Amino acid sequence: MPIITLTTDFGLQDWFVGTMKGVILGINPRACIVDITHGILAGDIRAGAFALHASCRFFPKGTVHVVVVDPGVGGDRKAIAVRTVDYIFVGPDNGALSFVLAHQQVKSIRRLENRRYLLEPVSHTFHGRDIFAPVAAHLSRGIPLNKLGPEQDDWLRISWPTPRVRPKAIEGEVVYIDRFGNAITNIENVSLPALGQASVWLGRRRLGPVQAFYQSVVPGKPVGVPGSNGFLEIAVNGDSAARRFHLKPGMAVTVRQAKGKA
Amino acid sequence: MPIITLTTDFGLQDWFVGTMKGVILGINPRACIVDITHGILAGDIRAGAFALHASCRFFPKGTVHVVVVDPGVGGDRKAIAVRTVDYIFVGPDNGALSFVLAHQQVKSIRRLENRRYLLEPVSHTFHGRDIFAPVAAHLSRGIPLNKLGPEQDDWLRISWPTPRVRPKAIEGEVVYIDRFGNAITNIENVSLPALGQASVWLGRRRLGPVQAFYQSVVPGKPVGVPGSNGFLEIAVNGDSAARRFHLKPGMAVTVRQAKGKA
Amino acid sequence: MPIITLTTDFGLQDWFVGTMKGVILGINPRACIVDITHGILAGDIRAGAFALHASCRFFPKGTVHVVVVDPGVGGDRKAIAVRTVDYIFVGPDNGALSFVLAHQQVKSIRRLENRRYLLEPVSHTFHGRDIFAPVAAHLSRGIPLNKLGPEQDDWLRISWPTPRVRPKAIEGEVVYIDRFGNAITNIENVSLPALGQASVWLGRRRLGPVQAFYQSVVPGKPVGVPGSNGFLEIAVNGDSAARRFHLKPGMAVTVRQAKGKA
Repeated sequence: MPIITLTTDFGLQDWFVGTMKGVILGINPRACIVDITHGILAGDIRAGAFALHASCRFFPKGTVHVVVVDPGVGGDRKAIAVRTVDYIFVGPDNGALSFVLAHQQVKSIRRLENRRYLLEPVSHTFHGRDIFAPVAAHLSRGIPLNKLGPEQDDWLRISWPTPRVRPKAIEGEVVYIDRFGNAITNIENVSLPALGQASVWLGRRRLGPVQAFYQSVVPGKPVGVPGSNGFLEIAVNGDSAARRFHLKPGMAVTVRQAKGKA
Repeated sequence: MPIITLTTDFGLQDWFVGTMKGVILGINPRACIVDITHGILAGDIRAGAFALHASCRFFPKGTVHVVVVDPGVGGDRKAIAVRTVDYIFVGPDNGALSFVLAHQQVKSIRRLENRRYLLEPVSHTFHGRDIFAPVAAHLSRGIPLNKLGPEQDDWLRISWPTPRVRPKAIEGEVVYIDRFGNAITNIENVSLPALGQASVWLGRRRLGPVQAFYQSVVPGKPVGVPGSNGFLEIAVNGDSAARRFHLKPGMAVTVRQAKGKA
Repeated sequence: MPIITLTTDFGLQDWFVGTMKGVILGINPRACIVDITHGILAGDIRAGAFALHASCRFFPKGTVHVVVVDPGVGGDRKAIAVRTVDYIFVGPDNGALSFVLAHQQVKSIRRLENRRYLLEPVSHTFHGRDIFAPVAAHLSRGIPLNKLGPEQDDWLRISWPTPRVRPKAIEGEVVYIDRFGNAITNIENVSLPALGQASVWLGRRRLGPVQAFYQSVVPGKPVGVPGSNGFLEIAVNGDSAARRFHLKPGMAVTVRQAKGKA
């Protein structure tokens, strides 16, 4: 069965996600719909982009990934579908696709303007239901991308904060706080071995060592851990690092070579 | 695959929804189960009725829609299944079906009393698992409604607040607050054009103009928008209107013809 | 379609659950994945064990049940799969399986150490994605348990608080608070008839009678009810008993034979 994933900021209190699924199943009854998350903070395009990037590559090739974090719905931002070597991505062209497309080989980009593949009348406030769901369903049935609308050359990018690599340190920042209160940074795991034994610092405060897993430190203690989606995380064994250290996206984090004991 | 939707106030913290799905799949392994929402406020029959009404028509014909917002579980309210021209609805006869049935052509109503189609022993506290899930699963397999129990003539209705139409204004009220803090009113979109340019008022306070979409006003400003499920919404561009103006279901809202600039 | 259930403390804000589903569908595209809950309090092994126990038997035989409440991820706790007469259970050997296995006839226990069935490279922080999801997917395709790794004789048990049965009373405790604020106790429904008419007590305070359902008492009043998963619950008709009486897991509860009016 063709897979369609959904990543939105719609939450689960209302009927929005369920309605999108109804529209999809009306067009493709064989679609297998998987929720990545609907818990993106309302309008937080950057968090949506990160969630999609962190998860999309774990799905089989051919999956249609839909993202709807769309504070500009009804305005003049474009709606697009993007075919890469592995997947098709569908969403508003507002930056939500920019992290994931930076790591994919893009083959084609189309605007979703062919009304034949939309749910008419298209509302001004719920394009998840009226544009993105029906287009994803048609794509999952094999409709070629070029039927959806005019070609577009590029997509809107939001900046990814690049860490600064020093001789004995890497300066980065927090990019996402997860449900456990782990603070995911922009410092890639692959950059860590060059430092040898290292510690993670918040400004001038040393939080703890970089170790392989959460329980490498005693309960209640902070630790830097190479995270499961490729980036260093700041964690506290058995507690929320974000709450303990008031961590938020954008806060500066440094990993430093340890002088003595890491 | 036959579709069964679920709309409940069970939340997602516990095992209630998962258990219903286990029961359904044990009876019909081919059922495609779709969550509309499980985030209805505990016991809020009116909100459940509204969520089902707002979403059900986006599902293919033949879908079995289950609603379980059932503060009277185990008491003397009846459990019913209702066949309309397009769908089958299953739930307690406590008003949860009344908004949706007001817009459907009802063919038959049956009480769920044939124990052959229930999960025995039927508990007094979890009819979602013991009555509504198994009945929905059997119906999705094509069991005719008339096998479920005795016929019933009518269903319990909860009142829908009808807006009052004045020469140059429509007086309505807030009926639902969504996850974005948009306040959905009972004023139908189709009634708005008669007013021409209009503004939305809270008592004697003018909130803002009625416009086509959220970004028609600058960020942070309130706006009335014809909503995606057919009713005027009060929104704030990029923020929560409900929080900003302390909006709650039941509060009076008026749309007035604009004198000058809408 | 083979069923795989998921019970975790991952929450729904992030991409963790969606990622597990992507991994499963990549291995077994025909898997029917059912969420039991992802709302277990972070690291609360006991609550996860209870949720799985309360729900698993409502699924068809052959279902693969996955539980991931795993504060020790990456440490030295083992990952196991357990075949019982009815089901296969997959999870960390940290007690999360102990309630459910106490009621199942165990046939075989294997450690998940054959890297052929894992997602390489296995991270130290997300075994849900790298170990439990792929193993469950392979099992749902019929891979025999003995291919997964070495046999293990036993599993880690966490203690279940056994109620104390007195001549005219049963002394137990609260084991779980559900979303409605009902406090589920360890006192089994089947032990109640021996008392005849009875009342539920919190220390020296009589809360209310034991009755068949929530609405047996007037709105706002407390009542003890034989719950849907086999244990006495303390409830308040139309309100949260947990909030009203500050109930928490571990608090002592007594059911006493009523002297006069129950």
